[in-house]
Amino acid sequence: MKLKHGIYKIDNLSLNNNDLIVNEAIFHNANGYIGIRSNYEEGYPNTYDSIRGSYINGFYDIADMRQAEKLYGMPEVKQTMLNVADTQTIYLSIDGEKFSVFEGTTLYSKRFLDMEKGITGRRIVWRSPQGKEVEINIIRMTSFYQLSLFTIEYKVKALNFKGDVEFLSYHKSEVRNYSNSDDPRVAKESTCYLISKDKVIDEKMSFLTSQTRRSGLSVCTGVNHTLSKAGSIHTRMEENNVVTSIQTSIDQQEEIILVKYSVFTDSIGQIDCLANAKEKMQMALSIPLEEHYKEQRRYLKKYWENCLMEIEGDDDLTTAVNYNMYQLIQSVGKDEYCNITAKGLSGEGYEGHYFWDTEMYIEPFFNLTMPSITRNLIGFRYKTLDKARDNARIMGHTRGALYPWRTIMGTECSGYFPSGAAGYHINGDIAFSIISYYLTTKDLDLLVEKGAEIIFETARLWLEIGNYYKGTFRINEVTGPDEYTCMVNNNYFTNVSAQYNLRWAKKLYYILEEENKLAFIADRIGLSEEEIKEFDKAANCMYLPFDDELQINPQDDSFLEKKVWDIANTPKDKFPLLLHYHPLTLYRHQVCKQADTVLAHFIFEDAQSLEIMKNSFDYYEKVTTHDSSLSTCIFSIMASKLGLEEKAYEYFGDSAKLDLFNIHGNTKDGIHTANMGGTYMAIVYGFAGLRIKESGIYFAPVIPKQWNKYLFRINYEDSQIEVEINQRESKYTLLKGSPKIIHDHDNQYNLEDSIVLKKGEQ
Amino acid sequence: MKLKHGIYKIDNLSLNNNDLIVNEAIFHNANGYIGIRSNYEEGYPNTYDSIRGSYINGFYDIADMRQAEKLYGMPEVKQTMLNVADTQTIYLSIDGEKFSVFEGTTLYSKRFLDMEKGITGRRIVWRSPQGKEVEINIIRMTSFYQLSLFTIEYKVKALNFKGDVEFLSYHKSEVRNYSNSDDPRVAKESTCYLISKDKVIDEKMSFLTSQTRRSGLSVCTGVNHTLSKAGSIHTRMEENNVVTSIQTSIDQQEEIILVKYSVFTDSIGQIDCLANAKEKMQMALSIPLEEHYKEQRRYLKKYWENCLMEIEGDDDLTTAVNYNMYQLIQSVGKDEYCNITAKGLSGEGYEGHYFWDTEMYIEPFFNLTMPSITRNLIGFRYKTLDKARDNARIMGHTRGALYPWRTIMGTECSGYFPSGAAGYHINGDIAFSIISYYLTTKDLDLLVEKGAEIIFETARLWLEIGNYYKGTFRINEVTGPDEYTCMVNNNYFTNVSAQYNLRWAKKLYYILEEENKLAFIADRIGLSEEEIKEFDKAANCMYLPFDDELQINPQDDSFLEKKVWDIANTPKDKFPLLLHYHPLTLYRHQVCKQADTVLAHFIFEDAQSLEIMKNSFDYYEKVTTHDSSLSTCIFSIMASKLGLEEKAYEYFGDSAKLDLFNIHGNTKDGIHTANMGGTYMAIVYGFAGLRIKESGIYFAPVIPKQWNKYLFRINYEDSQIEVEINQRESKYTLLKGSPKIIHDHDNQYNLEDSIVLKKGEQ
Repeated sequence: MKLKHGIYKIDNLSLNNNDLIVNEAIFHNANGYIGIRSNYEEGYPNTYDSIRGSYINGFYDIADMRQAEKLYGMPEVKQTMLNVADTQTIYLSIDGEKFSVFEGTTLYSKRFLDMEKGITGRRIVWRSPQGKEVEINIIRMTSFYQLSLFTIEYKVKALNFKGDVEFLSYHKSEVRNYSNSDDPRVAKESTCYLISKDKVIDEKMSFLTSQTRRSGLSVCTGVNHTLSKAGSIHTRMEENNVVTSIQTSIDQQEEIILVKYSVFTDSIGQIDCLANAKEKMQMALSIPLEEHYKEQRRYLKKYWENCLMEIEGDDDLTTAVNYNMYQLIQSVGKDEYCNITAKGLSGEGYEGHYFWDTEMYIEPFFNLTMPSITRNLIGFRYKTLDKARDNARIMGHTRGALYPWRTIMGTECSGYFPSGAAGYHINGDIAFSIISYYLTTKDLDLLVEKGAEIIFETARLWLEIGNYYKGTFRINEVTGPDEYTCMVNNNYFTNVSAQYNLRWAKKLYYILEEENKLAFIADRIGLSEEEIKEFDKAANCMYLPFDDELQINPQDDSFLEKKVWDIANTPKDKFPLLLHYHPLTLYRHQVCKQADTVLAHFIFEDAQSLEIMKNSFDYYEKVTTHDSSLSTCIFSIMASKLGLEEKAYEYFGDSAKLDLFNIHGNTKDGIHTANMGGTYMAIVYGFAGLRIKESGIYFAPVIPKQWNKYLFRINYEDSQIEVEINQRESKYTLLKGSPKIIHDHDNQYNLEDSIVLKKGEQ
Repeated sequence: MKLKHGIYKIDNLSLNNNDLIVNEAIFHNANGYIGIRSNYEEGYPNTYDSIRGSYINGFYDIADMRQAEKLYGMPEVKQTMLNVADTQTIYLSIDGEKFSVFEGTTLYSKRFLDMEKGITGRRIVWRSPQGKEVEINIIRMTSFYQLSLFTIEYKVKALNFKGDVEFLSYHKSEVRNYSNSDDPRVAKESTCYLISKDKVIDEKMSFLTSQTRRSGLSVCTGVNHTLSKAGSIHTRMEENNVVTSIQTSIDQQEEIILVKYSVFTDSIGQIDCLANAKEKMQMALSIPLEEHYKEQRRYLKKYWENCLMEIEGDDDLTTAVNYNMYQLIQSVGKDEYCNITAKGLSGEGYEGHYFWDTEMYIEPFFNLTMPSITRNLIGFRYKTLDKARDNARIMGHTRGALYPWRTIMGTECSGYFPSGAAGYHINGDIAFSIISYYLTTKDLDLLVEKGAEIIFETARLWLEIGNYYKGTFRINEVTGPDEYTCMVNNNYFTNVSAQYNLRWAKKLYYILEEENKLAFIADRIGLSEEEIKEFDKAANCMYLPFDDELQINPQDDSFLEKKVWDIANTPKDKFPLLLHYHPLTLYRHQVCKQADTVLAHFIFEDAQSLEIMKNSFDYYEKVTTHDSSLSTCIFSIMASKLGLEEKAYEYFGDSAKLDLFNIHGNTKDGIHTANMGGTYMAIVYGFAGLRIKESGIYFAPVIPKQWNKYLFRINYEDSQIEVEINQRESKYTLLKGSPKIIHDHDNQYNLEDSIVLKKGEQ
């Protein structure tokens, strides 16, 4: 299998600062454990803004988060993802002239990401101020095969001269996090969180260990250099940084290659990170770079086989969709120690925190393509369940668990609780995602081990926060997905997701009982059938706001009573609204940052009639700004469901190209991982209409008129199914596994080999 | 006239730290411009906690108030009241032995406040470790006659020896504010806000000028010493502090007196505060101390004549009531540059900020006793009207003014907007207070000059924040007086006060038009009759929440749908709840920190029937914790109105004795000025049932069975009326001014001289 449109490249690179800083994120390398921003090895002029960073997923320090007014239970510290080291800095000099694209003449330049090979590259043909011409090819890789490893292969070819070549290669452990005091979405203060500890250096190799100031963690980076020909290699300390000088000569048309390996280890997984780094470096050096490249291709071959997706009729879109899926595998943690941050490992936006994005936007993708990843993500939530229990106590609940709105290691890190800790739906989201994993894989073992306990504990919390009023069960003072309306009563999304959580807690109880697997869990958390009956009662009495007149579900009890925001007459430069209006101004209006009730209608479609969903879609569309990157993909999905194909396609485009085209203007701070999952969902759940329910798997495919065909593969239970939709027919092929009953629109088919359904004939 | 129970004293003083620190506030001296905590001149052991402070009303620096998450429009700085200097420190040595009540033997000790003389005092008879006995009498005064002046008269008498006496008297300008990182009600960080500038010293006199770090203000303190007999006086600098050593000899039974004058000036009123301080010191020295004492008595004689209040049958209560009234005149600003802080000038709680306390709890007292003070307070709001306009813009409103929830110089200083900036009722409160002043005094001139513009601009804001929904005018996302339920829709208090504001804007428009005084204001703020019609429409359509089933006014749209807090089963040590529960926990429950709807029923009694008020009182009583000091006085007033005399008396007692008995446990941080006004209101509006409306003045007196009689005087229009109520009759006497029509219960009387109404005969 060859991945179509698996390369994203930019020719004739601009030297515009804004483009460069966006490209740092766009072309970053990551493997779910480490992430390196694609900064130019040789740096930028001093006046340029750049976020030079290397990150480890889940590695954090504690930072102050003082409250302007101290109130009970508000966190006063948070976890923050650290820039751990700089191992990407390499200065090149030819005959004493320092290479920089900001001097001399760039005759050719290109940057690319190869998603099949799992590498990024730069190619530059450069004429120095003195007229010496070189061709430079730099390949970078963060290895999926060895997660600790980051490689730079730096090739220099002398085109019109012979002379001396010098590389000055840096290994810096004294680095700071990026800051911008004006943007609420990145850190306000530039802080150096790491204290240098051990330094071990020899001629070609160096290991620097640092300790965090407050979290008690350590990180070690090891660097090794290999030159393709004889030369001198000298390493020295420059304050706390290691500088390796590599000198050699070059002939005309000769190419010399410097290979720089960096390994990253931290004390979360293995306490002695220095010893571990040394070991990891030995492991890296034990096979040649070519072998590492091969392993990378092998890993990705399997990945693309699982998540293959092609769109015929729009190559850019296929590239964008591939790009998004590539970023997901780059970003997602590969074990239970970490998760997937809102910005992946591509930048410091949202400080490396994990949100509901994981469950609602990213797991749906992995469930269908690589369910082992979902297992890790659920495992992470299970590992932090005790912290969620503690959090529930802080929030005044005597039973159950309440997951934090944003976190790295499990405690609440939101500084502004109305759009942070008040987002109780995080509990419903996590429960929902576990059930989705189960429905897709039928893997009951994971539920027995981890998932069921989470579902019971989150269900308990709804009883704690909710109360009965006039015979209905109400949930007051929470914030739904839409952060432009906070601390409301009976947010439709929250209530319907609580209902689902409670109902599944009951179902699971009896499933586990049936399987003789209940006793251990029930004993451990003191769960009785009595409590299950309370779950059931609350679920059945759950109040779901409904407006008789408009025949829609109001977002919450008072949403419809508020003034409608005049979106059309709001100046373009006032978006996103949150940067230009006081929260109270937003809360007082009917205006949504993102899909909220519309998301609920997608996720819990059986709770309402199509008619109500349609009315609601029309209503909310008019009051939604899509200031959140989590919004357009959901509107696209619902538009598909409701037969609004033009709209579905338009929303989908906004979602798919968000980062590659920097549509939100903040890709410099990192990619938007949730939206990337959302793009996938917009195709699979949107256009193809996939739903996986207790009763089976359903498709209801439509195809945008701009496309000739689209195709994707999904895993379902023990099988892999390929779905191919063109303007005339839908084709379902069983690639692997046992035959399956599938549904296309309202019809049921037994998929044993391949089924072709002509349009209008389903 | 002799003030009965005009002295509050404590004999046999305890050395308990908690008692001492509370007494620092209880016995503080202030005159509305300066306030000096009653710290022991000689200090305390190092292990003791003490808040040593001298404050100037309205003098502030800017302090950081960083938000944990930056959001649009959140203030990131605040004003904070400064501890400006220490001029009260005096060490006494007799024959080389340093006086301290923590050493040797205290044979007698007493502290007192004389509210007729306007002084505080200490009297100690002390035996030194070596057996030398002295009697010490120290009198302190902050002068109402010369607001810049603070005096200490320090008398020492040798009882059983003759020998040497030395005073070491300090004048320190390097002082810090008090801090306590655990209590949200005082500042978190100890900060030195002042930078020493000019130092001018000679033998007996010193002037220290300091500048604030960020607000650009200066303060100067001048100190002068006079000794009653010959001695040596030497002044030296010790770092940035001035130390004056005063040495002399003493005979057995001889009394020597050191008089220390301190003057305080700041650059807000007069830019060159050093020159001003020198002038003020000359002024102070131009008459002997005895003359200053006389002026003080003269000022207070007039004060007590105006606000005389006696309760026969409970002397302690009369003392407490006198104490509270005395604190009000001590605390309130005497010009338009300042207002009255939540803690007066007695401590640093709430950082010297001005709140709605001024309008709703304190002006009612001054309207009736010293309306010139209310004029200043209204003047302060008028001076800061432009800042309130700016604040409205920040909050997203294109027209009108929105006063800050807490402030010193007019900008918003609340760090947590849900119980800060969301308190839009501050606008209604200010409008209400101006109307009350007008109804009491009939002073239309102040309205023409200042008040009307405020009323129009605040009325405008209701149109900005509110919106029509199904024919009613709604106000969403505000916080009412009760801070345990924040950001709600249609808070009854807010809506009814907005209605009053809007209606009076209309009335005033036509009153001013009638008087030919409208044009100038209307032109200036672009007010048209069109807009007045909009005010009228909104007022008439104002939605006032009402629950049919309970026949009460719900505090807001969703209050009744929430869980009822189990107050009875909440452990005592969990009060006040705000220190022990997350805001969301509180917001999710039916639990009130203070009177909210009950306050609305008192203030706007014509908006509802007595029946509904009664039902509401019963309802809210069960869910109110009175964690706010603004609560019990209001419950007392409403209990009186509703004929619940026992309850009225009980609530009243809690209110009257709050500070003298440190009922809330935080008097150390300062007295509770609003509650002090509330005590007065509980008698005059509560027991005596006073109301002043457009239609005239009304009484509906009751008398607690514990009392024989109570008596008070009020100003009404051009007259002064004395009201005396005993168990058998009510007596109204016109002390000054023109005859008045008054109402007692439902009957109308012409008060020309004196009217006596027998109980049951009204």
